[in-house]
Amino acid sequence: MISFKNDYSEGALPVVMEALLKTNLEQTVGYGEDEYTAKGIEAVKKSIKCDDCYVRLLVGGTQTNLLTISHILRPYEAVISADTGHISTHEAGAIEATGHKVIELLTDGNGKIDVEMIKKAYETHKRDLHMVQPKMVYISNPTELGTLYTKEELINISNYCKEVGMYLYLDGARMASALASEKNDIELSDYPKYCDAFYLGGTKCGLLFGEALVITNKSLAEGFFCSTKQKGATLAKGRLLGIQFIELFKDDRYYQVGKHSNRMADMLKKGVLEAGYKLKADSYTNQQFFIFPNRVIEEIGKKYRYELWENIDEDNSVVRFVTSWATREEDVKSFIGDLKKIK
Amino acid sequence: MISFKNDYSEGALPVVMEALLKTNLEQTVGYGEDEYTAKGIEAVKKSIKCDDCYVRLLVGGTQTNLLTISHILRPYEAVISADTGHISTHEAGAIEATGHKVIELLTDGNGKIDVEMIKKAYETHKRDLHMVQPKMVYISNPTELGTLYTKEELINISNYCKEVGMYLYLDGARMASALASEKNDIELSDYPKYCDAFYLGGTKCGLLFGEALVITNKSLAEGFFCSTKQKGATLAKGRLLGIQFIELFKDDRYYQVGKHSNRMADMLKKGVLEAGYKLKADSYTNQQFFIFPNRVIEEIGKKYRYELWENIDEDNSVVRFVTSWATREEDVKSFIGDLKKIK
Amino acid sequence: MISFKNDYSEGALPVVMEALLKTNLEQTVGYGEDEYTAKGIEAVKKSIKCDDCYVRLLVGGTQTNLLTISHILRPYEAVISADTGHISTHEAGAIEATGHKVIELLTDGNGKIDVEMIKKAYETHKRDLHMVQPKMVYISNPTELGTLYTKEELINISNYCKEVGMYLYLDGARMASALASEKNDIELSDYPKYCDAFYLGGTKCGLLFGEALVITNKSLAEGFFCSTKQKGATLAKGRLLGIQFIELFKDDRYYQVGKHSNRMADMLKKGVLEAGYKLKADSYTNQQFFIFPNRVIEEIGKKYRYELWENIDEDNSVVRFVTSWATREEDVKSFIGDLKKIK
Amino acid sequence: MISFKNDYSEGALPVVMEALLKTNLEQTVGYGEDEYTAKGIEAVKKSIKCDDCYVRLLVGGTQTNLLTISHILRPYEAVISADTGHISTHEAGAIEATGHKVIELLTDGNGKIDVEMIKKAYETHKRDLHMVQPKMVYISNPTELGTLYTKEELINISNYCKEVGMYLYLDGARMASALASEKNDIELSDYPKYCDAFYLGGTKCGLLFGEALVITNKSLAEGFFCSTKQKGATLAKGRLLGIQFIELFKDDRYYQVGKHSNRMADMLKKGVLEAGYKLKADSYTNQQFFIFPNRVIEEIGKKYRYELWENIDEDNSVVRFVTSWATREEDVKSFIGDLKKIK
Repeated sequence: MISFKNDYSEGALPVVMEALLKTNLEQTVGYGEDEYTAKGIEAVKKSIKCDDCYVRLLVGGTQTNLLTISHILRPYEAVISADTGHISTHEAGAIEATGHKVIELLTDGNGKIDVEMIKKAYETHKRDLHMVQPKMVYISNPTELGTLYTKEELINISNYCKEVGMYLYLDGARMASALASEKNDIELSDYPKYCDAFYLGGTKCGLLFGEALVITNKSLAEGFFCSTKQKGATLAKGRLLGIQFIELFKDDRYYQVGKHSNRMADMLKKGVLEAGYKLKADSYTNQQFFIFPNRVIEEIGKKYRYELWENIDEDNSVVRFVTSWATREEDVKSFIGDLKKIK
Repeated sequence: MISFKNDYSEGALPVVMEALLKTNLEQTVGYGEDEYTAKGIEAVKKSIKCDDCYVRLLVGGTQTNLLTISHILRPYEAVISADTGHISTHEAGAIEATGHKVIELLTDGNGKIDVEMIKKAYETHKRDLHMVQPKMVYISNPTELGTLYTKEELINISNYCKEVGMYLYLDGARMASALASEKNDIELSDYPKYCDAFYLGGTKCGLLFGEALVITNKSLAEGFFCSTKQKGATLAKGRLLGIQFIELFKDDRYYQVGKHSNRMADMLKKGVLEAGYKLKADSYTNQQFFIFPNRVIEEIGKKYRYELWENIDEDNSVVRFVTSWATREEDVKSFIGDLKKIK
Repeated sequence: MISFKNDYSEGALPVVMEALLKTNLEQTVGYGEDEYTAKGIEAVKKSIKCDDCYVRLLVGGTQTNLLTISHILRPYEAVISADTGHISTHEAGAIEATGHKVIELLTDGNGKIDVEMIKKAYETHKRDLHMVQPKMVYISNPTELGTLYTKEELINISNYCKEVGMYLYLDGARMASALASEKNDIELSDYPKYCDAFYLGGTKCGLLFGEALVITNKSLAEGFFCSTKQKGATLAKGRLLGIQFIELFKDDRYYQVGKHSNRMADMLKKGVLEAGYKLKADSYTNQQFFIFPNRVIEEIGKKYRYELWENIDEDNSVVRFVTSWATREEDVKSFIGDLKKIK
Repeated sequence: MISFKNDYSEGALPVVMEALLKTNLEQTVGYGEDEYTAKGIEAVKKSIKCDDCYVRLLVGGTQTNLLTISHILRPYEAVISADTGHISTHEAGAIEATGHKVIELLTDGNGKIDVEMIKKAYETHKRDLHMVQPKMVYISNPTELGTLYTKEELINISNYCKEVGMYLYLDGARMASALASEKNDIELSDYPKYCDAFYLGGTKCGLLFGEALVITNKSLAEGFFCSTKQKGATLAKGRLLGIQFIELFKDDRYYQVGKHSNRMADMLKKGVLEAGYKLKADSYTNQQFFIFPNRVIEEIGKKYRYELWENIDEDNSVVRFVTSWATREEDVKSFIGDLKKIK
């Protein structure tokens, strides 16, 4: 079986594995107090051009989201998100489990929210103290549907948040892919300017695991280590995160990971279009959403792994294909070839 | 610097690293649904001789404790623990953060609790519905102070729990060391008999990270995956845990890890006694607690890392020395030699 | 000012006040262990014809909802509700604060949900363990919009819940009004048949405060007193609740409270229609939703209190008028008269 | 049966009942936005001579404690309390249920804590970020054992808290009794000076229910109404609290309530001493703790209600007797007489 099911099917970039192996018998202090972690954090700071940010390296995305949101909000405050946002759907109620409501905005299928939508929700809640009080906006770039925010959209949301006193938190689980997309006009160094907190994904961008959380608004980070410990999110051998992030941000590797993923995704998209099928959304990142007849999906399934996304009607469904740093061109070509053969 | 500060100063057993490297580019499904995880779980089940247990591989100890306790207890129920228990002290209020009180029993310095102590707390709470209701007992083996429960003690606690309808949960973060201790009379296969849940530690016993949670009482495990996700504790590349546990439980490796650790600890202990110093507790596992004059501690600190445990009086303190699978005999000898030279 | 703003503008039914006064200097034990509470509970049980239910008298509605839901659900479970449900909107995130997600179903403006809507949400979540697991359905009768469920609709939802293993919990904050509505075909004794838990409102139906929670499925009530204490919801002088409920369920008083409220609401509705205005929804209970031009609303506001519900367009809005046991016919007539005079 | 079991055996002061009756049919807005509530709050502010404090009237003590503590603390912060504190014992884990650890200080039986004890706990936790971080000290005056803090002790604790950046929160459930005690040297107007938050009890001091929470440090009160709603602690007919507190703080009624209670308690104490029995603690407030042989306790129990506090040995136990505004002198005399007759 060849898998396009997700971008965490393999281990890590070979250079990352080498670095882990090379340092394996060195002794360091635990829980991220070591020098590798310090250097990994430096590498992240350099990549976002923000010396004065608070950075913490964490193991996973849901962990990072629930930690950040619960650490920053006070008990009566809520976070606004797209109804398709990861925190709204695929985190098993992780945010609510920390006591906070996720106010879900109905999106039109592209996974993005805008100032108008946010404003409506904000004002509805704000005028009624019997409702939770929105204090944070959560967006993902790329979104769960592979779409991208433009710099202008990001700035607009950021400005509105500042205007009304909400925080903006951005989930960059697949940031490498956003960064390297031909449609992207946001640089890494823009994020600290417009977000109060955000994270750069490692797990889906070439690491065994690891997400780099940045809290731009440093006053929000007070006591964060303690929260991390409390939520079971401190890695005893914290250096494993540091070593990996040092490698990921060496040279332009983070960008290259995204570039390769996107190129493979683009090959898939073009092949699918050539084969006469349609897209659910015009994604320029490493997640692609294709509309196939169910019998085609079944045929494909004999050789390839994908994610069944949703049913369109009785005969057609959307499937998600995801590429990564590890996707092989020959596998993409093989898939396209096989697809074209299906009648 | 040579570190005796803890048993998570290095990476992982070389065989573990090799296995990770060898499988690095294989594709598997995520979140522990893969075959390596299945095999890792099988290896754990075989080691405890319990086919019918529920086993889940998790990243860290605090994570495992908070997940298990919060999953099993109902909102008004509490867990009883030694005041020195990990959940009472060094988890930053992780259990309380999930809504549950830890009822702390005053221990006399050896970190162990017994039926009499448990019974007193149980009865005090049980007769008053204005108090939380105890429903679980938490013990560690070895304890935080390196001491061990005997099989008889374990059985007594287990029997009392069953009698009054409480669950027994055992934290085996350093189980390899317990297992290989000359004073130990409990086999791995005893734990499923006497505990409703327990975990076998990997992080402190030779893995990069990883704890194998066993829920013996399977009805308690319903919905556990969902809880895991909710607490941010599912590893996307779940196979990393499976691959590591396969290696850890191959042959008698888990036992060997403990044996080496204990042998190094014993060398330390004997050396310290020979040098004329005293022990805080007579530990037969890989944590040793020595009483040194502060000036000796300072001198040692120039070359060796240790954990300052507590102050005894103005001039003397307790320090903790921990050994592991990676501790080198030459480093122990060097330390003993240096210690003896200090006047 | 004459208030139609809500049904909790006054104190309590005079008979209730008399009973409180008469018993004022008697001594009873606290926290609901007294005989008045026992008798109040008996009165509730008799009214619903269910001897074998668990009944607890509580102070307020939000308190009752958060207690019941958090007591019954396990951490990874969620409750399904209309997006207009009280727990979705006007409880300031009370359910989420206990750790549980409210899965909100988009309603079409009548505040009701049906099996099809529930089923869709249930199945979406159930097939994905990365999502919270729905385990309870929450409905209100009357709904937040004054509409009523028919007996058939209630049975259908109940049957579906049983089929898939979810609990049905019904919020009867304004049950007296439902009960006495000309459109109602559900008897009090039907609720224990079709619901796992429900509550009969007192605060909005003639008491100073008080809601009678019924847990039909008694196994769900284990430990409930302790949960009540833990959430700060036990009233020290618990008899105050008992004394009030004894009076409320004496003769057919609960029904009479609803009947008077509904008759006043009906007078309002007819008057408004006669005056040439429209209704937002055709309510047959004590909440009425009128569409008025803003200038009319402003004019009314000089003499009457109402609740501004929502804006329709630039010139028109919906206002909510609520009647109660204490609403005076002369005030309704005065309002209708004044309304008709406004040009 | 004559009850000395607690100070909430009866309803309310007759003047309070009259005021409730007199206002019963008036219309007011809900949830404490009414004028009676405003006036009740003014009365509280006047009594404590603090115009600039935030005051909220709440229904019960556990509710007030859990609301205040969870509103003020951030997730990783804990509250320090005596092991005999109400929040440590008789609130069924209410504080932990909001996510916060109660760090319990071992007291020597008088229910009081001092700077030295607090400091030791503070420093132990503060130096280790793997432990929760103490941020608040909770004390009661009078304590659960009827003892009182002196003004000097209060100031010392307050100063230490300020020095290290902790908040001081004082539970005044039985404040009327403290206030009127012959041993008291703290005035109501001292509390805002030395505490960041505190509450003046109504339930145990003559009201049907009601506690007046004062947050001196107003910045801590931001969003408090919303927290109140979220925890199910807003009373729809909020005026009931206002009306009661207006009466309680009229003239020197609050003091008189305490004075009568204390006088009755003192009569009890003297009688018990005369009868040849001993006290567990020398209380000068309305809770008295007597040591009686078990056969005496049994005999008493035929006619009087008390609280069995703890067993001393096989033959003797401590019983708690509590007096209130409603305790009748004739009942105290009757009890003393009967006690003296027991051989």
